[in-house]
Amino acid sequence: MSMEKNIFHSCMNEEPQLVVFGLSNQMVVAFKEENTVAFKHLFLKGYMDRMDDTYAVYTQTDVYDQIFFAINQYLQLPNISVGNHAYEKRGAEETALAVCQQFYKRGTICPGNDTFDIDPEIVTDCLYIEPMMPLDNRTVGKHNLNFSLDFHRLVTVQLMFNLKAINLQTVRHHELPDCYDFTLTIMFDNKAHSGRIKISLDNDIAIRECKDWHVSGSIQKNTHYMMIFDAFVILTCLASLILCTRSVVKGIRLQREFVSFFLHYYKKEVSFSDQMEFVNGWYILIIVSDVLTIAGSTLKMEIQAKSLTSYDVCSILLGTSTMLVWLGVIRYLGFFQKYNLLILTLRAALPNVMRFCCCAAMIYLGYCFCGWIVLGPYHVKFRSLNMVSECLFSLINGDDMFATFAKMQQKSHLVWLFSRIYLYSFISLFIYMVLSLFIALITDTYETIKHYQQDGFPETELQTFISQCKDLPNSGKYRLEEESSVSLFCCCNGPSEDI
Amino acid sequence: MSMEKNIFHSCMNEEPQLVVFGLSNQMVVAFKEENTVAFKHLFLKGYMDRMDDTYAVYTQTDVYDQIFFAINQYLQLPNISVGNHAYEKRGAEETALAVCQQFYKRGTICPGNDTFDIDPEIVTDCLYIEPMMPLDNRTVGKHNLNFSLDFHRLVTVQLMFNLKAINLQTVRHHELPDCYDFTLTIMFDNKAHSGRIKISLDNDIAIRECKDWHVSGSIQKNTHYMMIFDAFVILTCLASLILCTRSVVKGIRLQREFVSFFLHYYKKEVSFSDQMEFVNGWYILIIVSDVLTIAGSTLKMEIQAKSLTSYDVCSILLGTSTMLVWLGVIRYLGFFQKYNLLILTLRAALPNVMRFCCCAAMIYLGYCFCGWIVLGPYHVKFRSLNMVSECLFSLINGDDMFATFAKMQQKSHLVWLFSRIYLYSFISLFIYMVLSLFIALITDTYETIKHYQQDGFPETELQTFISQCKDLPNSGKYRLEEESSVSLFCCCNGPSEDI
Amino acid sequence: MSMEKNIFHSCMNEEPQLVVFGLSNQMVVAFKEENTVAFKHLFLKGYMDRMDDTYAVYTQTDVYDQIFFAINQYLQLPNISVGNHAYEKRGAEETALAVCQQFYKRGTICPGNDTFDIDPEIVTDCLYIEPMMPLDNRTVGKHNLNFSLDFHRLVTVQLMFNLKAINLQTVRHHELPDCYDFTLTIMFDNKAHSGRIKISLDNDIAIRECKDWHVSGSIQKNTHYMMIFDAFVILTCLASLILCTRSVVKGIRLQREFVSFFLHYYKKEVSFSDQMEFVNGWYILIIVSDVLTIAGSTLKMEIQAKSLTSYDVCSILLGTSTMLVWLGVIRYLGFFQKYNLLILTLRAALPNVMRFCCCAAMIYLGYCFCGWIVLGPYHVKFRSLNMVSECLFSLINGDDMFATFAKMQQKSHLVWLFSRIYLYSFISLFIYMVLSLFIALITDTYETIKHYQQDGFPETELQTFISQCKDLPNSGKYRLEEESSVSLFCCCNGPSEDI
Amino acid sequence: MSMEKNIFHSCMNEEPQLVVFGLSNQMVVAFKEENTVAFKHLFLKGYMDRMDDTYAVYTQTDVYDQIFFAINQYLQLPNISVGNHAYEKRGAEETALAVCQQFYKRGTICPGNDTFDIDPEIVTDCLYIEPMMPLDNRTVGKHNLNFSLDFHRLVTVQLMFNLKAINLQTVRHHELPDCYDFTLTIMFDNKAHSGRIKISLDNDIAIRECKDWHVSGSIQKNTHYMMIFDAFVILTCLASLILCTRSVVKGIRLQREFVSFFLHYYKKEVSFSDQMEFVNGWYILIIVSDVLTIAGSTLKMEIQAKSLTSYDVCSILLGTSTMLVWLGVIRYLGFFQKYNLLILTLRAALPNVMRFCCCAAMIYLGYCFCGWIVLGPYHVKFRSLNMVSECLFSLINGDDMFATFAKMQQKSHLVWLFSRIYLYSFISLFIYMVLSLFIALITDTYETIKHYQQDGFPETELQTFISQCKDLPNSGKYRLEEESSVSLFCCCNGPSEDI
Repeated sequence: MSMEKNIFHSCMNEEPQLVVFGLSNQMVVAFKEENTVAFKHLFLKGYMDRMDDTYAVYTQTDVYDQIFFAINQYLQLPNISVGNHAYEKRGAEETALAVCQQFYKRGTICPGNDTFDIDPEIVTDCLYIEPMMPLDNRTVGKHNLNFSLDFHRLVTVQLMFNLKAINLQTVRHHELPDCYDFTLTIMFDNKAHSGRIKISLDNDIAIRECKDWHVSGSIQKNTHYMMIFDAFVILTCLASLILCTRSVVKGIRLQREFVSFFLHYYKKEVSFSDQMEFVNGWYILIIVSDVLTIAGSTLKMEIQAKSLTSYDVCSILLGTSTMLVWLGVIRYLGFFQKYNLLILTLRAALPNVMRFCCCAAMIYLGYCFCGWIVLGPYHVKFRSLNMVSECLFSLINGDDMFATFAKMQQKSHLVWLFSRIYLYSFISLFIYMVLSLFIALITDTYETIKHYQQDGFPETELQTFISQCKDLPNSGKYRLEEESSVSLFCCCNGPSEDI
Repeated sequence: MSMEKNIFHSCMNEEPQLVVFGLSNQMVVAFKEENTVAFKHLFLKGYMDRMDDTYAVYTQTDVYDQIFFAINQYLQLPNISVGNHAYEKRGAEETALAVCQQFYKRGTICPGNDTFDIDPEIVTDCLYIEPMMPLDNRTVGKHNLNFSLDFHRLVTVQLMFNLKAINLQTVRHHELPDCYDFTLTIMFDNKAHSGRIKISLDNDIAIRECKDWHVSGSIQKNTHYMMIFDAFVILTCLASLILCTRSVVKGIRLQREFVSFFLHYYKKEVSFSDQMEFVNGWYILIIVSDVLTIAGSTLKMEIQAKSLTSYDVCSILLGTSTMLVWLGVIRYLGFFQKYNLLILTLRAALPNVMRFCCCAAMIYLGYCFCGWIVLGPYHVKFRSLNMVSECLFSLINGDDMFATFAKMQQKSHLVWLFSRIYLYSFISLFIYMVLSLFIALITDTYETIKHYQQDGFPETELQTFISQCKDLPNSGKYRLEEESSVSLFCCCNGPSEDI
Repeated sequence: MSMEKNIFHSCMNEEPQLVVFGLSNQMVVAFKEENTVAFKHLFLKGYMDRMDDTYAVYTQTDVYDQIFFAINQYLQLPNISVGNHAYEKRGAEETALAVCQQFYKRGTICPGNDTFDIDPEIVTDCLYIEPMMPLDNRTVGKHNLNFSLDFHRLVTVQLMFNLKAINLQTVRHHELPDCYDFTLTIMFDNKAHSGRIKISLDNDIAIRECKDWHVSGSIQKNTHYMMIFDAFVILTCLASLILCTRSVVKGIRLQREFVSFFLHYYKKEVSFSDQMEFVNGWYILIIVSDVLTIAGSTLKMEIQAKSLTSYDVCSILLGTSTMLVWLGVIRYLGFFQKYNLLILTLRAALPNVMRFCCCAAMIYLGYCFCGWIVLGPYHVKFRSLNMVSECLFSLINGDDMFATFAKMQQKSHLVWLFSRIYLYSFISLFIYMVLSLFIALITDTYETIKHYQQDGFPETELQTFISQCKDLPNSGKYRLEEESSVSLFCCCNGPSEDI
Repeated sequence: MSMEKNIFHSCMNEEPQLVVFGLSNQMVVAFKEENTVAFKHLFLKGYMDRMDDTYAVYTQTDVYDQIFFAINQYLQLPNISVGNHAYEKRGAEETALAVCQQFYKRGTICPGNDTFDIDPEIVTDCLYIEPMMPLDNRTVGKHNLNFSLDFHRLVTVQLMFNLKAINLQTVRHHELPDCYDFTLTIMFDNKAHSGRIKISLDNDIAIRECKDWHVSGSIQKNTHYMMIFDAFVILTCLASLILCTRSVVKGIRLQREFVSFFLHYYKKEVSFSDQMEFVNGWYILIIVSDVLTIAGSTLKMEIQAKSLTSYDVCSILLGTSTMLVWLGVIRYLGFFQKYNLLILTLRAALPNVMRFCCCAAMIYLGYCFCGWIVLGPYHVKFRSLNMVSECLFSLINGDDMFATFAKMQQKSHLVWLFSRIYLYSFISLFIYMVLSLFIALITDTYETIKHYQQDGFPETELQTFISQCKDLPNSGKYRLEEESSVSLFCCCNGPSEDI
């Protein structure tokens, strides 16, 4: 059985390769983010850092100003930008900037009379501005573009255009630069018709290999070595997967035989917990980890070959497998008596903790729903059920309490009073009673397990059965074929190994 | 008794309907807030996001500037606003903007001589500006409006006007838009005469059905279905309420009989805790929950029919009832042995925790008052008793500690030293002693209950009495009419059900 | 002995009066703060809210601009300010604004040559500008004021002037307004000669009764009633003080007699803890509380009579006495068995907790000094020993941890690494070991006290002695004069009352 | 053995001197920081406080503006700066400002065609501007400086210049001022070519004694006294070091003799823990502390003599030694029975806590890696492994929880969902299970040690052996020379002293 372990260890070799993957991705993300920041400063008038969520316009002239500012900046981009930005080309022509407005097909809205006549179908109308227009450096404005907005009917205005760039940064680490396609969308959102048009800039990215390049000096594409390493990782994990699956399958077969044997000879059902003793939980963990690693590494190879870009799925697969590999190390710590005590305590306390979490969850959910319904309109942190849950979870753990108290709007005295009772009762209940009970649960389990370790664990039926078997492993009574023997029960997969 | 439970379960059907209610209200609140933000940007000169609490003017010219800016923006609103805002109409005329100043009737204030002569009666003087004035796009200013302020006597200036809007957003979800009336008040507050005139914009909202509307395509008003569902919820809750009340009433009747029986035969008073065994706490919870649901749903129907707008009361009623329904689920968890242990612990620890809370509250209140009196003038978080309590409560739970230390003004060395002793002693006392005692209380109770579960609970007099009754339920000794039999005590409402 | 208690209760009557005192002071502080904010906006050029700690100038022209801006604003104050601000008058003349510069007597500083010749004596040179100067609304500038600065020698520039105001706010609560004198100092601080001149505005306040006033309608000066109430509080506290002191004195006399009796008859020393049984700790608390209340109330009367303004001392005295009064309430809770358990636990655990605090304090102080020396120059929170202590204290209680990690400057890699080891080790040590030991201490004490309550407390020598006395209180053996009898030990001040 | 203790105590004399060292360094750091802030305001156009991390330019004209602004400010520095700043002189000439641009040797980048031709070798091209240029107060611009940038090839632009200043502040505390050399670098970073050029100002400092100075009045250089004191500290620590080392060496010798004696007479190996009894851990601590103090003080003398400037190493050495000195005080507290209990508990729990930390660290590291890989690109706090660790550590201790939840970007729904599972599971696992187990560990150890104190510690072999030795210390059986006697084992270094 040591073979699985060794292969499992070799599976940890993926760690450095994972770090390389993480680092390269960090650089890509950083490049994308810096470009997005640069585009915001270039195309949004009066934009300043850290105002994304409040960036909006409130008057009609400001809307036109913003649109024409963005158009003009786009037309003069080569003279303005300090980065390697260029227009996308379709053949010889450069792609145009599209100014699209969406509006209700028909709409006569007279709030003064409380009357309206509307056709909710949405019509899109686009205008294309090409960078090649002979502009003589003059700026485009309302006068020379046939463009006007009917604010009563207007739903959104979108400015869409494509830009390209090359990430030269890598050339300094002797790696080949990549080419980036940016699809920019500046969105003027008037869906609410509240007098506030939110402006947001969205930047979609696509990474491709550059078509034609020439670099002086030594540039190596070390992705080939990476791929060979990846393949090696996949192969070792596959081997580990097969061996562990074999062990688990054998365990299950043994379990079935044992159950039928027990039913036949002792006329007794084997309890579920005894049946579980045959399945080694660690092998299950290794199998899951292996499957994730294989899937993740395969995906990673595809990404490196630029044929796929589902980076998120890949990182989740690889990340989770790494976490499981680290968790697997605990198994080896469990071979020491004193470490085992702690691990056993956690494992023994888990069912009780889960049970108690269920009870606490009822109260928690009650508070969640109640808070969302009552405080939602008056408190930023209670806007969505998801945020309520996060806020309450933070409160239990002693975070952001004063801020939560203070951010409550004082519009309605009744609701304000309710919020105080709600928060005080919730926090007191959870911190002083629920959390204390968790400590009581763990302390009690620790005491129990410690006494077991000193005085011996209570024997299960299976252990009693095994202890009756006095034949030594080398007595010759155990056949090599595991499929048919009953006496074989005594020697392998004993619970002492199942930490 | 299973009937109550089933009905109680059907009472949980209100959950999805509650979510619909919450969501629709969120949208209304969001629309209102966006409008308020838009109005602030339109009518307050130089207003920027996140400066509400510091938005103020300090010079006389700035006050005039602000007032005339707001007036001019109001007059040009249709050409400026990007939302569906319109003036309110009273008949054919559009309502005017009222500029009202409040000032002391008479006031000669000479701080230089330490003398003043004042009549504290407050006089209000208003000026009305109608949007229909033929302004020729000229702006209104100090010269063409007969308006001046005597800052020595001035208490407040208020600009009040009404605007209307239609929330078109809903039309895209195939729901009928509502009409909104906004009552805006821009308040220049000079009550303190401190040289700082705070400016605030208040926006009151009223939602009404639009008078005359026409929408192409399919628009359904699904409020009818909602109301039918509401009525169904009310009916089931009413049924549940009646059944539970009946059970509780019977329990109390049984208790009285038992008390008199006991007094007659055994010459002993029944203890209060034994008397409480007859009243099932869960039924009380269901009754409260039902009453709240019925009241809340009725109110909700009224709100949907636009005849009432007391949304706050309704949401508190429905929210609290939802919370109680979720709490009720714990009862069913308590039927499992292992879950029961945890619930029993919490219930058993509650009286002791409450008692200890009383003791701790004395120290807490002492610190509250002392902190308010001494630190109030020098620390923002100690300005009101309410805030002191919230601040101290947050400190106990480990929040905002460094900020609380740091925000102390260093004006007076004596007070600064006091604040250090105050904060260190308070935090140490509560976190290291009081919170630890809560844990000790719960741990101890958990141990006790666990031993009870293993070795049996100590018998109460009632249980001793019941255990003497050996008649089986089907022995025929129990009559169907519960009112007159004594032996009936043995069979129902036993404590094993009262989790 | 019930008399003391009653009087003690009556001492709680001061509570409402304390609230009045607190509220009136809050209003004064708010008025002062608003004025200070207004002055900052009026006299500091380009000042915006929340920039106090970074408000500074960096160029020579900016310094002159700032100074002349402040002077011009001062000269035009009556036309600018929206508050009731006026110049102070000395007789008929209005007080002048003083522009004082402090500079080194002699100084030739040539950093380029690393040479300097300096006389560190500081010379002050002032210029007075009177508001009455016939300025014709022209602004004062560098040209018409003979004012120049030698920045190499300059230490500080100070603009000092006095303003007066009347707090009219109170007139609306039917109270008489007070007159305020503001002494304003705008300080340009060039002590460091670092190229950065910090500007701060300091506002000193004096409150006086207005000289000559006339208010129409009813205005009552209810300070007379307040003073009578104050006098009543002082008298009751005095009575309580005398009675409690008498009890304590008697207790000590009894203790001495007991000690000598024991030494004489049993030839044994009485242990210190037994001697302490004679002194009722609660009486000590009442005495301290009374002394503080009497001192505080006396001071408060002086303040109300405007003869003293030491508000801080008064509020500390009254605040601390209030806290003690609330703490005293715990005594009465201790009369109930179950409450007593909790109070006894806290009292019994206190010595051990204090002892452990001593040990922990050694480690804490070690970390404090080490952190200050090493991290001080690179971390804002470690600038002063006081702040280090507050920061570490917050970290122990789980506050501001990520911020503390993140704010570390990354200048020196060695120090950065040290800071990580320092913070991780400190937090782990205190949260996982020290705090857990507090819980262990309290849990253990709780168990001990609980067993004592069930099985009886271990008897002290004193209790053994008392239990031998079988004479009933009404046996006639106890004389009314307590001074000479030995047998009297048995009946009063028994430990059962010393909670 | 009391000699070591006394010397150890005298070693604590360094404390006041340490405080002096800390304070003087604080002043130096404050002066440097203020200068840096001043330089940022002087040389960076439009710079405002607290915008260091977002200070960047986005257009080509802005880059030129920034560069020429800085150059012009530098040329006019003597007329602008309010501090004692001067140009550095090399002989008679003043040092020039260097404008250096780094660019790729060759570069034709056409993102529009996805093509590029680049030579990654970096060429540096510098331009020197001397302050003495006869500028007639005219500003330098693009026209009169032959300076242009090719943004496609540009990597960085650096403006480098030297300034000098004298810290006059000390003259007011009667200390001699120091001369400072500032090496300023304004860096325009275009390495990423992302359209965003980050601007940072770096200020390197060198402190030297001024060459030629003259100060009127009394100025003392008290560094001489400081150095004598330092020498005294070094000598005492050296004495303490020698004595402690002697004790430890003797202990080890004794241990070896004991082991061989035991092996010879009893034929038994002495266990490791028994062997450790001979080495007094406190002496090891004192030795480490002494070594650090001696190294630190020597370094400090060098720094005071201005021959070395490695302040960081010095402060780490002195800081750590101070921490150890304070930790050493715990030893003396351990001589009291009740304090000893607590210290013993901590010492006894330490191995178990460390063991459990190992187990927890596996889970922790698993989460770290997983979080970095998956959440890194979407969450600011997960950008580097180091920050992930700090963030998770803060979360365990209940800090910044809501912020961590809220800062997650909502770009990818899959990753968002993953982040929720990740955070909830991590926090629940660690706060409710791992932290509780720490408490259980400590509580259990405390109980164990308490019972040991009451009933006696379990005897080790060594103690059994010692207890057999009945000879009194003055029996004459112990020779003064410790090297050869076996019976000597009984009397010194007994475990009762090894707290």
